[in-house]
Amino acid sequence: MKEILINYMKRFSELSEPELEKVAADVPVATFEKGSILLRQGEVPDKCYFVLKGCVRQFSVDESGKEITSDFYTEEQSVTVFNQHTIDKASNYSLVCLEDSVMVVGDVTVEQNLYNENPFLERMVRKMVEEDMGKMKDDFAAFISSKPEDRYKDLQKERPDLVNRVPQHQLASYLGITPESLSRIKKRHHSM
Amino acid sequence: MKEILINYMKRFSELSEPELEKVAADVPVATFEKGSILLRQGEVPDKCYFVLKGCVRQFSVDESGKEITSDFYTEEQSVTVFNQHTIDKASNYSLVCLEDSVMVVGDVTVEQNLYNENPFLERMVRKMVEEDMGKMKDDFAAFISSKPEDRYKDLQKERPDLVNRVPQHQLASYLGITPESLSRIKKRHHSM
Repeated sequence: MKEILINYMKRFSELSEPELEKVAADVPVATFEKGSILLRQGEVPDKCYFVLKGCVRQFSVDESGKEITSDFYTEEQSVTVFNQHTIDKASNYSLVCLEDSVMVVGDVTVEQNLYNENPFLERMVRKMVEEDMGKMKDDFAAFISSKPEDRYKDLQKERPDLVNRVPQHQLASYLGITPESLSRIKKRHHSM
Repeated sequence: MKEILINYMKRFSELSEPELEKVAADVPVATFEKGSILLRQGEVPDKCYFVLKGCVRQFSVDESGKEITSDFYTEEQSVTVFNQHTIDKASNYSLVCLEDSVMVVGDVTVEQNLYNENPFLERMVRKMVEEDMGKMKDDFAAFISSKPEDRYKDLQKERPDLVNRVPQHQLASYLGITPESLSRIKKRHHSM
């Protein structure tokens, strides 16, 4: 399964395939059962992940007790909580596995040492984060200007697997709508 | 004005203040008149910016010809279009100065050379992008679950200067609402 990681790294690194294979061989991979909690809102994250197989949901509970799903991470996505801008470095999100998942696990407490020993890793990570940032900018800009129905269509186009892979009330939350609205939109959309 | 840059860099670098001053002294700063177009949607960006003074609007025109404002950059924010995930590397956005602006100008075509010569720069940029990414995740998560009125309140809390600094129809676009809705929300909010 590490070929997923190698293919991904290839896009961000000038290292040769054998060199990347060596990097991948040293990387710890772990299996998580459906329902595993990777991080709780309020905790200071000490791990980051890269999904080889499975699905992780990011959510938070607001002051009124309402649960808001703000992201789903699936194959070939990195799961990192960037918390350096927060005062207490605590995570604003919880992370939970929606499926049995296989993931690369990184230890963020030794991140800086790793980069000192392997500068190519820091370069790779910079490029990965910049790509994620570019995608998120686009998603955000699209979300601002779109109606719920368009958001559903966009999601079905961009991430067709997701629509049937996650609980519908969580998908509705992610789209910023009620489960009833999502149900109506799906009916309209699939009868067209 | 470069002390703004030095103070900002200090948060992301282990270099000493005199060392950072040396870096800042080498950095090109330019002045742009209000209305200056920094980048046009569809162009491949070759510059990035850091705002020392002023305001830059990011917007795009959608297929129906509608203009959507998706960000405003003000003092101590970097203005970078991350386009590595797009097929043709073209920008999805235009960038225009809303005010006379003073900005650090970076040349992204020589970025990699700069990093090769100064590895501390790459580290600093990685940390800056990660912080921006963390903030954007929070903003996006908040946007998903909030009503327009809450978005206005959040913006007034987080970036109080912005509310009166930019044209109201562009602010409305950025909040995902009509100018009429924004006007109603402001009236309600300020009469409370």
